[in-house]
Amino acid sequence: MTKKAFIKVTLKEEVLDPQGKAVLSVLKSSGYDNVKDVRVGKYIELEIDRDNFPSIEKLKNEVEEISDKVLSNPLIEEYSIELK
Amino acid sequence: MTKKAFIKVTLKEEVLDPQGKAVLSVLKSSGYDNVKDVRVGKYIELEIDRDNFPSIEKLKNEVEEISDKVLSNPLIEEYSIELK
Repeated sequence: MTKKAFIKVTLKEEVLDPQGKAVLSVLKSSGYDNVKDVRVGKYIELEIDRDNFPSIEKLKNEVEEISDKVLSNPLIEEYSIELK
Repeated sequence: MTKKAFIKVTLKEEVLDPQGKAVLSVLKSSGYDNVKDVRVGKYIELEIDRDNFPSIEKLKNEVEEISDKVLSNPLIEEYSIELK
């Protein structure tokens, strides 16, 4: 049986986001003047074989490890995990 | 006053995701064998000046238009919007 993990990876608030600024500039020049700021992050979906985990807690621990070591750069990014 | 809109942009299910496959390959070679599939999308946060909208409905309409025209490619991607 599989379980899905959804991970949002975003830049820490104090880190500049040039991609977000680029999108903001496109929006402004397209007339969307009500948009005041844009931040761009990643949204990652993992499909995980849950049969090898004794508990959901253990599975979540592995997703946290993956998010920490592979999916994000903890120096400049933070993440949140949702299991479904 | 501002309102935040959170937009997840993901590839349609039938569209191949080479970036996801690359992450999957890294995970497998790092010993995370329980991960069976990976899909990578975008997570975008907009900060919007709500004072110019007569209703939240109108604001949401504009976020949908922005998602449709600027943030996603409707041919291969889909999006979901959350207002907070």
